[in-house]
Parts: sequence; C-alpha cells; structure tokens
Amino acid sequence: MPAREVSQPATEEASPPAIDYIFHPRSVAVVGVGPPKLGPAGVGTGFVLALQDMAFDGPIYPVNPKHQAVLGLKCYPSLLDIPGPVDHVIFSVPVPAVPQVVEDCVAKGVKSIHFFTAGFRETGEAEAAELERRIVARAREAGIRIIGPNCMGLYCPSSKIAFMPGSPVEPGPVAFLSQSGGNAGDVIFTAVPRGIRFSKIISYGNAADLNEVDFLGYLAEDAETEIIVAYIEGVRDGRRFVRALRHASARKPVVVLKGGRTEGGRRAAFSHTASLAGSALVFDALLRQVGAVRVDSIDELVDLAVAFRFIGRPPGGRGVAVVGAGGGFSVFAADEVNEAGLELPDLSPAVQEELRHFTPVAGTSVRNPVDTNIIMEPGKLSETLRIVASDPNVDVVAFHISLGWGSWRRSLQRDDQPVRLDPGTVVKAMADAIARARDASAKPIIVVARGALDTDSMIYSMQFEDQCQRQGLAIFPTISRACNAIAKMVRWWEMRQDA
Amino acid sequence: MPAREVSQPATEEASPPAIDYIFHPRSVAVVGVGPPKLGPAGVGTGFVLALQDMAFDGPIYPVNPKHQAVLGLKCYPSLLDIPGPVDHVIFSVPVPAVPQVVEDCVAKGVKSIHFFTAGFRETGEAEAAELERRIVARAREAGIRIIGPNCMGLYCPSSKIAFMPGSPVEPGPVAFLSQSGGNAGDVIFTAVPRGIRFSKIISYGNAADLNEVDFLGYLAEDAETEIIVAYIEGVRDGRRFVRALRHASARKPVVVLKGGRTEGGRRAAFSHTASLAGSALVFDALLRQVGAVRVDSIDELVDLAVAFRFIGRPPGGRGVAVVGAGGGFSVFAADEVNEAGLELPDLSPAVQEELRHFTPVAGTSVRNPVDTNIIMEPGKLSETLRIVASDPNVDVVAFHISLGWGSWRRSLQRDDQPVRLDPGTVVKAMADAIARARDASAKPIIVVARGALDTDSMIYSMQFEDQCQRQGLAIFPTISRACNAIAKMVRWWEMRQDA
Repeated sequence: MPAREVSQPATEEASPPAIDYIFHPRSVAVVGVGPPKLGPAGVGTGFVLALQDMAFDGPIYPVNPKHQAVLGLKCYPSLLDIPGPVDHVIFSVPVPAVPQVVEDCVAKGVKSIHFFTAGFRETGEAEAAELERRIVARAREAGIRIIGPNCMGLYCPSSKIAFMPGSPVEPGPVAFLSQSGGNAGDVIFTAVPRGIRFSKIISYGNAADLNEVDFLGYLAEDAETEIIVAYIEGVRDGRRFVRALRHASARKPVVVLKGGRTEGGRRAAFSHTASLAGSALVFDALLRQVGAVRVDSIDELVDLAVAFRFIGRPPGGRGVAVVGAGGGFSVFAADEVNEAGLELPDLSPAVQEELRHFTPVAGTSVRNPVDTNIIMEPGKLSETLRIVASDPNVDVVAFHISLGWGSWRRSLQRDDQPVRLDPGTVVKAMADAIARARDASAKPIIVVARGALDTDSMIYSMQFEDQCQRQGLAIFPTISRACNAIAKMVRWWEMRQDA
Repeated sequence: MPAREVSQPATEEASPPAIDYIFHPRSVAVVGVGPPKLGPAGVGTGFVLALQDMAFDGPIYPVNPKHQAVLGLKCYPSLLDIPGPVDHVIFSVPVPAVPQVVEDCVAKGVKSIHFFTAGFRETGEAEAAELERRIVARAREAGIRIIGPNCMGLYCPSSKIAFMPGSPVEPGPVAFLSQSGGNAGDVIFTAVPRGIRFSKIISYGNAADLNEVDFLGYLAEDAETEIIVAYIEGVRDGRRFVRALRHASARKPVVVLKGGRTEGGRRAAFSHTASLAGSALVFDALLRQVGAVRVDSIDELVDLAVAFRFIGRPPGGRGVAVVGAGGGFSVFAADEVNEAGLELPDLSPAVQEELRHFTPVAGTSVRNPVDTNIIMEPGKLSETLRIVASDPNVDVVAFHISLGWGSWRRSLQRDDQPVRLDPGTVVKAMADAIARARDASAKPIIVVARGALDTDSMIYSMQFEDQCQRQGLAIFPTISRACNAIAKMVRWWEMRQDA
C-alpha cells in the first residue's frame, strides 16, 4: 500500500486548527469548466454556480484554455495566467491533465486542492494508484493540502463556499463529514426541509491526504459546530481514528454511518473510494466505547441530527405519549414505541378526564395512544398536547398527522366553515398550536408528518414541515423513525451522565 | 365475555362459500346519511358516493327521515319505506338509534349489515358490550350476517361495491383482510400506484359476528383471489384460526401483519376494536408453522403484495445484482442486500468486459453493484440490464434510480439533445427499456425508484411508477425494502418446495 506510506505520516502533522484556512479561501479557481449551457450542465460548471449562488466574496477564476468566459466570469487559459493569488483550486479535469495542473498549483503558491477528478486508486489499477500517490507527494512537499480525490469538496456557509448550486446560504450548527459526494447532496436535500443548517459539509472521497482523522479533529474544536454527523467507508489508521472519535464525542454528539458493513458493502466501498472497510463488529464496538451514536442509513443519520438539534433538552425518561387520529395507526404507533425500546405509559385518570372535554367517546381513545378527531382544531389541539405533556408519566409527546387523506382533506371542506379553508393557513395554525403547547410544557413535543400520497398532499406536507421547522419543532416522517432517534438520543444522554 | 358466547358458535356454522352472497348484494341501503355538502363531507355520505363511483348496478337507497334526497337519490324516512328488497344495509347512525334500525332490517328481510357505527365493545364499557351482544344475537336469529361493528366494510370491484370514493373500478388478484378501516384506505392509496388491484378488501372491525376465520376461509376458496394480505389485531379462537390460516396458506401466499405485538400495542388494539391480542411470539411461531409470511408494517405488507404479484416466477436463488448510478448509494445498496440475507455475487469477467463497452472507467464500477452513468439512455440501459441478468451467478436484477436530483435533472437539460426532453417521455422510455430487458431475460428484473424530494420530483416519480406498473414491473421505494420482500418471497418458495 504505497499510497498509505505517503499520506499517513503527512496527516500526523495536521493539528485541527491548522486546517481552518482550507474553509476560508480568499480566492477559488475551478479548472476544467465549460461555458454556461442550457441548464446547469456538468458538475464542473456547477462548482462555479454554487460559489456564485453563495455570493462568495473573493474572486472566482474559471480555468480552461478553450473558453474566454464562463458564467459571466473571465476564463483563464491556465492557473499561471491568473493575475492575483489563488488559495483554493477545484480540479474538474480528466486524469491525464492532472499532473501538469498540479505543477501549476505549486508554481502559483496554491494552499489547497479539491479533486473532483476521479479515476485514481478506487479503480483498482496499480498505475492509477501510483499516480495518486505521486500527486499527493508532490503537493505535500510544496505545502499544499488535498481534499479527495474523487469527491465533492467543501460547503461552508459562513465563508460563502459550496459545492452544490442552491445550497442554503445561512449557516447552522450541524457538520457533516462524508466520504461520498452523492450522500452529501442527499443529506442537504433531506435535512434542509426539516430545518437543519450546516456549519460545514466535507466530502472527502479517497482521503489520499486529509482524511477522516484530520476532519474529525478539526470539527471537534470548531466553534461553529455543535453536532457532528459522519458517513465513513474506510478508516486509514484505526488507533488515530479512535482517539479522534473519542475526543470529538466528549465535546459534542457524534453520529456515524458506516458504509461497507457487509462483505458486499466492503467490495463496493473499495470500488467507490478505495476504502478498506474493516469489520463491522469491531467498528460498532468502537463507536459504543467512545460514546458515538451508530446509525445504519442516511435517513437515520438525518433523524439523529434533527433529534439532537431540535429536541434540545434531554427527555427525562423513556415515556412516550402518542397523540393523533386513527385507530389502526394508533395500534402501529404503540407497537413501534415499544419496539424502539421506549415506554407507552398509561395516562393518569385526571389527564384522561381532562381530555374527555375535547374528545367524543365513539371511535376515539383517551388512553395512550390518544386517538382523537380534534387534530384540525388548533385551540383544542394545543390544549390536548399541553394536557398530555403534563402527565407525570410522560417524558415526550409525539403528535402524528397524515396530510395525505382522510380527516385532513374532509376538514378542508367542512360545511360549518364560513369559507373554504386554505391549506397553507391551516398547516400554519397547526404548527403554531403545537409550538404553543411545546412552549407551555417542560417536555419535548415532536411532530410526525406521515408521507405524502400524491402531489397535493406533498405540497401540504412540505408547507406543514416548513411551518414546523420555522417553529423549531423536531419533525419526523414516521413514528418508528421518531422513536428510534429519541431512544438513541436518550441512551446518549444517559451514557454521558454515567461517564 | 358474554359477547363471545353468542358470536362464537354462530361463526362455526359459516362455511366459506356460504358467505359469498355478502359480496354480491342486489341492493344497498345506507342509513343515517346527510345531503350532499360542499365536498364529500362525512363518511356516511362517502359510502353512497363510493357506490356511485363504482357504478353499482343495483339500487342505492339513502335512508334518513330528515332529508328528501341525497346525492341525486331519493332518500327514504326508514328502511320499511323502501319499495323493493334490500340485501345489504350500511349503518351510519349513532349507537342509540341502532336497535330500532336492526328491527327494521329484520322486518325488511335484509341479508347482511355493515356497521360503520362505533361505540360498542371497544369502549371498554359493559353496557356498550352488552348492546353489541344483543344486536348480534337479534340479527343472527333473523338470519342476518354482520360485518363489524366499527369498520369500513366491503370493497369488491367485480360486484361494483366499495367503501371509499375514488377506489379503482377494475379488479385484481389481491385480497386484503383488515381489522382496521384506516389501514384499508392506506393500503389502497399506497398499493394502487404500484399496480396492485384487489379482488376484495374487507374491513371487519370488532368482528362481533363474521370474523377473521370466516373471511380467511372464504378468501382461500375465492377464485378471484390469488394473494391474501391481512391486518389482524386479535383472534377469537386460536385453534380455528390456525386451521383456517393453514388451509389458506396451502392454496395461495398469505401475508399477515399483526397489530398489538407489544404490551402498548395490545392495549391500543383493545381500545380500537376490542381485540384481545395474544402473545406475539406465539403468533409468529404459528405463522411460520402454517407457512404464512409475517410482516411488521403496512409498507412491508404492500411490498410483499407487489413481490408476489409482479415478480411472478420465483427467483432461482439469492444472488442479487444491483444496477444504478452513485458510488455512495452503491455501498449502501450492497450492505442492504447482504443485511436482508441475500447475496451480491461478483459478476463474471466476461459480463464485466461486456459492460465496459457502455461504461466509462472513471467514477463508475462494473463489479456488483454496477455503478454506471448510462441509466438515462434507454438502449444502453436495456442492454446493461440484459447482460447483467445473463450472468450465471445472478438470480434477480435490481435497477435503482433517484428522480429527485443529480444526473436525472441534468440529463433533462443536456445540451447535446436537439430539444429539451419531456420528463414524461423520458420516464416512459426508461420503463419500456427495463421491460424489454425483463422480457429478454429468464430472471426477474425489479425497479427501485428512490423517494421524491420536492413536488417536481414527486410528479416525475409518479409518472415513472405509473409507466413501470403498466409494464407489470415490480417497483419498490428503497433497496432494503425490495430486498426484504425478495428474501421473504424466496423463503416462502423454498418452504413450499420442502413441504
């Protein structure tokens, strides 16, 4: 493994604050981009678009000898033709062009390189691996740090850099360290509607120079980062990784998704980022030992980010009260609460009696789950949630609703309303009602908005989700995903108290 | 448990063909409906609308002394005022009105009653349970069979009856036996877009007269039903249930979702349908013993219906080949195939070489998972799938695509296309290409269309899903759900071969 021999000693030198500058380039060059096309065609051009979308305040330099201008920016034949200094260079050129452009980076005094370019060690070809090794050695001897190759690079809203057009410009407290670029995009698309905003996203691919240890160490100290979530395929040096993970987990919640848990997954991880994925059992034991949270999918990773970000105060225990409409769904919800390792306490007689003021007898239940038909009436909904949260046996209240069909759609068309209700107004009133109950309670109240079944209900669901995230409510798509995240968060808090 | 003493001996008498008539009423009365309102307000009126939507060819009689007409139909003050015979009566009246309307049914010579009306034994009140018992006894002594109370009743497209407006008029080979009415609606909404059509859906609530044993026995013999899926909260008589389930499972695939698997779920099941849910362990053992398939959610129940309906021929083994775009996603897919108990065989060198004709080297893989960027080119896609399916180690091919972002959206805007592509045309060409490969292969090829991230992608996804179901392709939302369904189906076939 010659590639390791070079990159390993190099990364030993990187102390966390030392790499802060890679997130704060004064200027960025993107080598190998084409002119603007009909749409955002090609990822190379996408990097320029992403920087423009963020209103990056330093110069952006497209580089390509074939073009005069790209996306309204002067395009330079080579890096050496750029008049000012260049801190960061994004490579979007084919592999054979890489060595010369690296030489240009050295000559230009570049500080960091992000290789979007793929086709190195992950191909399994000895020659490609050797080229990767040589490039890293050449860059490092010139003092240049490398992100990648074979990755999407850096997103850092506070310094106005991004790799994907349309990323949120406002920053937040969640950092995502991702060996895969596709997953980084998936996480942005799925976490942003649920209110998550990011301090940094780092897609680092083959990790030929800077690797998971360097980035974890950095994020552990990063003042912008309160929660770390990570997708990791392979670890270069187990001992250093354990140390970095323990260090980070002692400071903030660290949630880890391991790719390559199985034999098939390990083979795929090598084909993807040349990662040598070790034993899943060892990795799990390691996560437990250092106090990190293990997840098994991108969805679960986002759920845990939502739980740590928006549930905020740790629940006092495992008692969940479920509130919503639907008898069959209440049975599922009850099973799923219990199967997640949480409890479904009986509500006290006093609370049940208080709830009966709002809840007709036929076809409902004021036990737990509370199966009620008042969920579309904001005043009664808020009161119901507040009353349920007041029960001494309850630690978390989970309110569920389906915006796909049933009572929701019928309620929009109730004949006792003076005018037809506007769905946007209704979902805002509901989110506000839930937030009022949350503000009046000493316990977390979370929202489960069950999946959309058609485009109308998707529009309603997205409006509701948006209103909930504006209110800082934790929102999940299913009871079982919500309960799984709560259970893992409760365990994490208990572990910290024991430690 | 006095209610049992009456209903139990009664159901012993019901031999399966004996209840076929309840699915073929010559006329239907709906008691307790209101006039048409702004929209389809109220479930009672919904039953009339549902029958009208199906173009039920017998008379529909709304009954309510307060109204002259409902939904364009003459409304009668009481059942006894209806001129012709009434076979089936749907009750949408409050509990106190029930006894008199039952007397009217007896006087009118009604054959079957469906009680939408709730508020009986499931309330936990002794008086309500006693009323339920008395009503069943009175009906049975007059030769009337009861569906419910506290349920949505019957959907049978071949006889043009339904409980929910907008249900498909065309029949299909899947029967759904559901103790919950909400779940029955959820299953229609989620299964229909994936191509599932139904022989019968039976929502039977408290099962005070006809129960799961009667309906299972009926569906086992029903010539319209090839696949039975069931949601059951509680079983009245364990021995008779085992016998009915064994009988049905010997004839067709039977997939069972048990509500009330946990202590909390059992309490909720009692509040919902007065069901006494027994031990989950005993129930599981029982399902295994009789050769039924256990599932744990509505989603999984629909997945198994799709697998049995559209994968058709049993896969020859557990070797899955995954084809699609995305390195990180390929790693997840590989892990999920293995974690579902399936295998991810290496593709043979000859197949890998054939694939390289279509697949550039950088950023792709022709191992398994095949990570390729040709998925938007129908000719190459069809060829790729056909070649992968030809590998002797492969038993099933899973093609995955995200219509949310990435290559899909960029491909719609490629500058080498003479005109902008229409998404509807593209998804049809893709579904056709997959179906061509399926037709040219001796092995199942299934589709995984990953979730929509916004309304545009939901429209694309629904169009693609629709094109796939028109081609009779099995379609799933995630790799892990597809693999779980395949694994359970393979085990089911193996069990039958052993038996």
